[in-house]
Amino acid sequence: MPDQDILALNAFDPRAATAIGQAVERRLRSFGAGSVLFYQEPIEMVRAEGVWLHAADGRHYLDVYNNVPSVGHCHPRVVEAVRRQVGTLNIHTRYLNAVVDAYAERLLATLPAAIDNLVLTCTGSEANDLALRVARAATGGQGFVVTRTAYHGNTAAVTDISPASRPGRPLAPHVRAVAPPDLYRAPDPGARLAAAVAEAAADLKQRGLGFAGFIADSVFSSDGVHVDPVGLLGPVVEAVRAASGLFIADEVQPGFGRTGAALWGFARHGVVPDIVTLGKPMGNGFPMGGMALNADLLAAFNAEDKYFNTFGGNPVAAAAGLAVLDVIRDEGLIDNARAVGDHLLQGLREIANAHVAIGDVRGAGLFIGLELVADREARTPAPAIATAVIEGLRREGILIGAAGPHGSTLKIRPPLCFSRDNADRVVEACDTVLRGLPVG
Amino acid sequence: MPDQDILALNAFDPRAATAIGQAVERRLRSFGAGSVLFYQEPIEMVRAEGVWLHAADGRHYLDVYNNVPSVGHCHPRVVEAVRRQVGTLNIHTRYLNAVVDAYAERLLATLPAAIDNLVLTCTGSEANDLALRVARAATGGQGFVVTRTAYHGNTAAVTDISPASRPGRPLAPHVRAVAPPDLYRAPDPGARLAAAVAEAAADLKQRGLGFAGFIADSVFSSDGVHVDPVGLLGPVVEAVRAASGLFIADEVQPGFGRTGAALWGFARHGVVPDIVTLGKPMGNGFPMGGMALNADLLAAFNAEDKYFNTFGGNPVAAAAGLAVLDVIRDEGLIDNARAVGDHLLQGLREIANAHVAIGDVRGAGLFIGLELVADREARTPAPAIATAVIEGLRREGILIGAAGPHGSTLKIRPPLCFSRDNADRVVEACDTVLRGLPVG
Repeated sequence: MPDQDILALNAFDPRAATAIGQAVERRLRSFGAGSVLFYQEPIEMVRAEGVWLHAADGRHYLDVYNNVPSVGHCHPRVVEAVRRQVGTLNIHTRYLNAVVDAYAERLLATLPAAIDNLVLTCTGSEANDLALRVARAATGGQGFVVTRTAYHGNTAAVTDISPASRPGRPLAPHVRAVAPPDLYRAPDPGARLAAAVAEAAADLKQRGLGFAGFIADSVFSSDGVHVDPVGLLGPVVEAVRAASGLFIADEVQPGFGRTGAALWGFARHGVVPDIVTLGKPMGNGFPMGGMALNADLLAAFNAEDKYFNTFGGNPVAAAAGLAVLDVIRDEGLIDNARAVGDHLLQGLREIANAHVAIGDVRGAGLFIGLELVADREARTPAPAIATAVIEGLRREGILIGAAGPHGSTLKIRPPLCFSRDNADRVVEACDTVLRGLPVG
Repeated sequence: MPDQDILALNAFDPRAATAIGQAVERRLRSFGAGSVLFYQEPIEMVRAEGVWLHAADGRHYLDVYNNVPSVGHCHPRVVEAVRRQVGTLNIHTRYLNAVVDAYAERLLATLPAAIDNLVLTCTGSEANDLALRVARAATGGQGFVVTRTAYHGNTAAVTDISPASRPGRPLAPHVRAVAPPDLYRAPDPGARLAAAVAEAAADLKQRGLGFAGFIADSVFSSDGVHVDPVGLLGPVVEAVRAASGLFIADEVQPGFGRTGAALWGFARHGVVPDIVTLGKPMGNGFPMGGMALNADLLAAFNAEDKYFNTFGGNPVAAAAGLAVLDVIRDEGLIDNARAVGDHLLQGLREIANAHVAIGDVRGAGLFIGLELVADREARTPAPAIATAVIEGLRREGILIGAAGPHGSTLKIRPPLCFSRDNADRVVEACDTVLRGLPVG
């Protein structure tokens, strides 16, 4: 069972509930079967700041899950930027306004020189949906290669390339899924992934579908967090280009400093994508997304197709986005992600000695995977232990989720302002919870 | 050439520009071929309130175009709601939060009883993309029927059902386009549309694609604004259901009181849709969208497919949405739309006597179409006159756009707080501009 942004191991299931509280009943009445709640006893939140979420019952929770409020919940500088702009001007990009131009310039300056144009959308899903169209127009191919538990968003076209959204169901004919680069289970993951992508691209071509590109996030988040060795994407991108496809770097998860190595996840691997897509942390919660690419590639697409996004590039989003970039710079959040991430990795590796259920601890910056196994030798995924730890950590006042094809990898992805003390608290709590489990 | 949300008659074209100002150059540098600007000399906006937009050069413009800031630009109550919530809590719907439940209840209470569940998205495009998936899952059909110059959004799937986005290009095999209900050119538009939809649905079935549904906005905005006679959608919805399809009411344009007859455009025609989609004016500029439908229909979709939208239903959007509903109620904006709309229609019909270029004036509430013709007898569309009037009105300090298959219908769609004085100003300015044209 994959855990990503739709299917969570710790999802509330009304059929399994012994008693449903009033707040949950209220939610189910309006949102029905579309309700997606965490925990068998869902938590009602009322307030948040920094790394803390405050619940209606007075409890507070350390946030190790939410990567949207990436510079911290309700960061005062982002809040102030939104407050100022929302009372001044909030309009689309068919009129000029200097805020959106300033944002585009700031953002593009952080990207490789070849990535010199930007399209602003409202969500990462919209950005990926558009990137698929651009890749198809540029290559004439229809087919895409993704990893097996990839998740790239929620539109019809993007759901097709998100096997995690449709577990157990056949892929669309134009989609091929390959194994993620899992160094825990096999050596040389970059070469393996490159060979698999090349084979899949050849198969798509042979079947007359053509090959448009390979899309991945460089931390392979929903595949279970696979970040090493640094540089693994090099041979993959070569294979994609040898097959005349585009490499789309989905930075919705690793982007905006999370890996502690650079602002962008792809940069950590030393590759330059053809298209970069952006989402979640871009506005620290203000809805915004984007697609960055070379001007010629965009012009070729626009020669045939037009694209306009009403909310994309509105000045309130741009102001929020500018504040996010300011905060990442002024608070040294990339360095913090690296330093605190390393500290957290080390702490988790230390307790791993005492817990046979911890099969692997891996990560980059503040994106860490802790894989739980039923058998260390056989490396058997243990989703039941992951669920127990998620519930145990909730009792310890820590919010966390899981990822990977079996949902057996805890996904540690806190706001980038996480401190060493916060990290120590997570390590202690993991230790406590695992000690309390029969299998821990 | 259609005018809708992508292709505008008055779009800036860098190839036609004799001189490009610094602000435009700056925009083109970052946004390249994806730039979509109005006017051959685009306007830089710096501030807005109510029905007014203020430009960098000190001029101000009466807004007769923008339907997103529907209760007025930077409305103080919406601004205050966003300012308060953005500093308190901004998180997704996997935790409970009372603001989003309050919003859902308020919104659902305005819809027919059978429409009792809501899915919140970030944009109208996302809402329509999801509605297509729901309709396919519910019917087993793949095909959709739309009107000839329909525009429903910008995702890959929604672009397929938006002929206006791809003028002159063949439709996807699963899409059929029918003539809009144009009372100016033919009588009995409801019966005609019903027959055309029935025929298209039968054709889709015969070709093995099946029929999933018919999607339309009830003012046929991008088709050139067709609103009469009241009730025209009755036979159409009957035809859709007789063919076992769903009727999706795209309320992105007519919703939230614009027609002056009811909060929802479909209600004016006395029909109950299977799915209602929402967007643009929902948050008065705060990005939000939604899909409302019967709980059983949603449950059937969710039994096979999951859907989660990270930004959809965040409490800041919900707070903005609540404020919009409050303002519509407390300021009597539906009544105002009807009263001022009627006054504006009457004023425009009066000047029509003096201008042979005005072929037709039609509308409901504050959604009015003024169709310009080269020959009143032949009713020949006159896009060149429409362009001249758009540019002339800009010099008069009025922002307006055009719609319809030839872009010959001025689309009058101001904020709902438009006053009689504002309306009089529009009538006078139209009169002045038309007098100044050789053909006026």
